[in-house]
Amino acid sequence: MLGRWTPLSHPDIADVTVDDVLRALADPTRRHILRLLVTEGDRPCGTFGLSVAPSTLSHHFRALREAGLIRQWDEGRKRMNTLRLDELDARFPGLVAAVLAAD
Amino acid sequence: MLGRWTPLSHPDIADVTVDDVLRALADPTRRHILRLLVTEGDRPCGTFGLSVAPSTLSHHFRALREAGLIRQWDEGRKRMNTLRLDELDARFPGLVAAVLAAD
Repeated sequence: MLGRWTPLSHPDIADVTVDDVLRALADPTRRHILRLLVTEGDRPCGTFGLSVAPSTLSHHFRALREAGLIRQWDEGRKRMNTLRLDELDARFPGLVAAVLAAD
Repeated sequence: MLGRWTPLSHPDIADVTVDDVLRALADPTRRHILRLLVTEGDRPCGTFGLSVAPSTLSHHFRALREAGLIRQWDEGRKRMNTLRLDELDARFPGLVAAVLAAD
């Protein structure tokens, strides 16, 4: 699995646009992932209680990472996730919180 | 122009989803339209200072209306627009303001 060992790319927060963030947030599964990161902290991909196919889940995490919403890194066999909340709040004050509170 | 005289449909605010709102907001032209409605009040379609093709503009207004963000009505030859801010704020508190403040 080459993908497992290629470095994970993360956009600089200055390059993240409102459009990127809103498109990434316009999905209930992705909002569920972010909400769990807010309430329960950093965690590996397999622990979000989502009954979706692994490929679908992988797509959602990638969409969140490429939009600048989460940071991912590998710890052994686990892929960890953290919300980039401080950076996002500095760039788009209150935006993530307002969206996550909306449903 | 049949479209001019067919009744304009507006979703009930209870049927508007977060996904609808975020997808509609994920576009700078549409945010510009909403921002002008917030700051300068109700106004006809032709007065938003946008240098885009009429068909493109029409598409954006329709996307905003179908997502539940604006209400439109005809006054003579003008199509008027108002932001459904009270309804949106009751359903998604602070969401529209946070998005419009983001860029």
